[in-house]
Amino acid sequence: MFFTKSPSPPLDLGTDVATLTATLCDLESVSGGEERIADAIEAALRPLSHLQVTRDGHAVIARTNLGLIERVVLAGHIDTVPLTEPPNLPVRRDGDNLVGRGTCDMKGGVAVALRLASLLSQPNRDVTYVFYDCEEIENERNGLARVGRNNPELLRADFAVLLEPTDGVIEGGCNGTLRVEVTAKGKAAHSARPWNGHNAIHEAMTILGRLVAYEPETITVDGLDYREAMSAVGIRGGIAGNVIPDECVVTVNYRFAPNKSGAQALDHVCELFEGYGVKLTDTADGARPGLHLPAARAFVEALATPVRAKAGWTDVALFSELSIPAVNFGPGDPNWAHHAQEHCPVQQLVDAEAALLRWLAAEPA
Amino acid sequence: MFFTKSPSPPLDLGTDVATLTATLCDLESVSGGEERIADAIEAALRPLSHLQVTRDGHAVIARTNLGLIERVVLAGHIDTVPLTEPPNLPVRRDGDNLVGRGTCDMKGGVAVALRLASLLSQPNRDVTYVFYDCEEIENERNGLARVGRNNPELLRADFAVLLEPTDGVIEGGCNGTLRVEVTAKGKAAHSARPWNGHNAIHEAMTILGRLVAYEPETITVDGLDYREAMSAVGIRGGIAGNVIPDECVVTVNYRFAPNKSGAQALDHVCELFEGYGVKLTDTADGARPGLHLPAARAFVEALATPVRAKAGWTDVALFSELSIPAVNFGPGDPNWAHHAQEHCPVQQLVDAEAALLRWLAAEPA
Repeated sequence: MFFTKSPSPPLDLGTDVATLTATLCDLESVSGGEERIADAIEAALRPLSHLQVTRDGHAVIARTNLGLIERVVLAGHIDTVPLTEPPNLPVRRDGDNLVGRGTCDMKGGVAVALRLASLLSQPNRDVTYVFYDCEEIENERNGLARVGRNNPELLRADFAVLLEPTDGVIEGGCNGTLRVEVTAKGKAAHSARPWNGHNAIHEAMTILGRLVAYEPETITVDGLDYREAMSAVGIRGGIAGNVIPDECVVTVNYRFAPNKSGAQALDHVCELFEGYGVKLTDTADGARPGLHLPAARAFVEALATPVRAKAGWTDVALFSELSIPAVNFGPGDPNWAHHAQEHCPVQQLVDAEAALLRWLAAEPA
Repeated sequence: MFFTKSPSPPLDLGTDVATLTATLCDLESVSGGEERIADAIEAALRPLSHLQVTRDGHAVIARTNLGLIERVVLAGHIDTVPLTEPPNLPVRRDGDNLVGRGTCDMKGGVAVALRLASLLSQPNRDVTYVFYDCEEIENERNGLARVGRNNPELLRADFAVLLEPTDGVIEGGCNGTLRVEVTAKGKAAHSARPWNGHNAIHEAMTILGRLVAYEPETITVDGLDYREAMSAVGIRGGIAGNVIPDECVVTVNYRFAPNKSGAQALDHVCELFEGYGVKLTDTADGARPGLHLPAARAFVEALATPVRAKAGWTDVALFSELSIPAVNFGPGDPNWAHHAQEHCPVQQLVDAEAALLRWLAAEPA
């Protein structure tokens, strides 16, 4: 018998949440490369008779169907940003922390959800577990959005919890995000005689100057404070080593408070870079906190932990589009997401599992 | 019979120099892709019984061996910088000009040399014609330097003329050139929380700022004025669309007057970018004019055209290393070299051919 690829190792959902987190992280799954981890998750969930399992591309959806009056979603993405060089995997234990790519953003949350899926054969609310691909890249490839397009009924719920890292507190809503390419134009010439051309990279200094001088705002929406951010995330220019380049492109990421629509945010960026070409490449609206809605209020009361605003964009915004109130709650300090020294305290993994178990295992109020 | 590649079209060296220039340009030969044009040149020269032809990689060397007391080199590179998008080929005639990639830098000069090679079966000095590859890229791949390493005897001469574009005047010496990578370092973080990192692209604004503020000098060497230049020719940075990048690299090209060595020029660049990592990637010393030497003086007197300094680096510097006095003299305004609208006046092609014919066809003084 021949294998065309190495099979996924089996996942043991009966192990402790820290060990499961490390196993999931070591199943490297940079966006676009989620097949093996999705296979492993699917294989671990299929044998559980209390769950109905659906596969959609490299997303896995598992649902209880107990006919309860309330249904909640627990969701997490299974992809990560690229590894560092040298690679920040495999995961290592450093004192009270797990260290390595994915420990914080967000295989810790995925491990918690998988543990709950395994333990809760009789939850007090029907639960839909969603493990999905391509969250860390262009919004149009987002696996959760794809599941919503392919089979919106699968996501139907009264409330959703995204297990993104929140340092163990509840984070309401989220900032929106957009990416634009800002282009400085020049005129090509031989670099021995630059006076005959106009150097687009030198011209891009003005674009960078506006970025550096920009002072992002903090905006209060429904009682929570949203801190905005505007950053260059890419720059490219150059034709050959002896040519004055005629184009330099700066990729800018704007994280905007949920009081603005994506269109308003784009207007703001266009204004900042007036005089330069601005091309939108990717946008996702934010989400207002929505904590006044009953199912969200019940969750906040059950967990009794602090509530704050979410700086990063998360897929609560997609639930928001589906009119499902959603919050972020998960292990890991989001300040370490995408960081070379990404890590997660083991205690937060244990605490998040326990908190969600208390919420879903007790009798509903 | 099967061909693994399309054969080169035959070159007609009996046609007029403008037609020959256009034919050579349409044999597209961006650096690294010179095989077909070298094959065509070799095939055109082999049948000429007054020439001894040698092939070295994609360079073709053809020599008369008349036992004359003086030997001169006529040399030109057969590669070009990349085409524009859409391509600035095939060549078109626009009024008095040929327009298209290579017309100026420097297939016009190559056409003139090929015409002389064909016409001068009994020149007044022995002549070595050198057509070589990879001049427009990293110096270590330069075809003329390779020929000099493989077979220095082939280049031995009393004087050399490089047919680089000079607008029909004689240009003495040349600026040196060096390229460095200047690196801004930062600290990666999630772009939703840039305050946890340090944006290397934003940091690179300082590097661009120093470049833009830099005022290049004009330096007089042996009576000719050399205008220096310092330019960004490339920039790159960015990890992913949602990551604050920890590195941004600016490629800088410094064109320095021949009063400086490459080492002195590098010191100057390191000083300008103090505080940033500077890595040398490519360097080539300039050449002093050398017009006081007898063979050079004879050439200048024979042509009776003005003499000025060469801003661009050319391979006269390689002849300078071999202690062979060398000048640039060729058709085309060098200001249009590498330009999207690169072109060459047809009259300059005709005049250059006529001037060199007068020099080499007359009895030596």
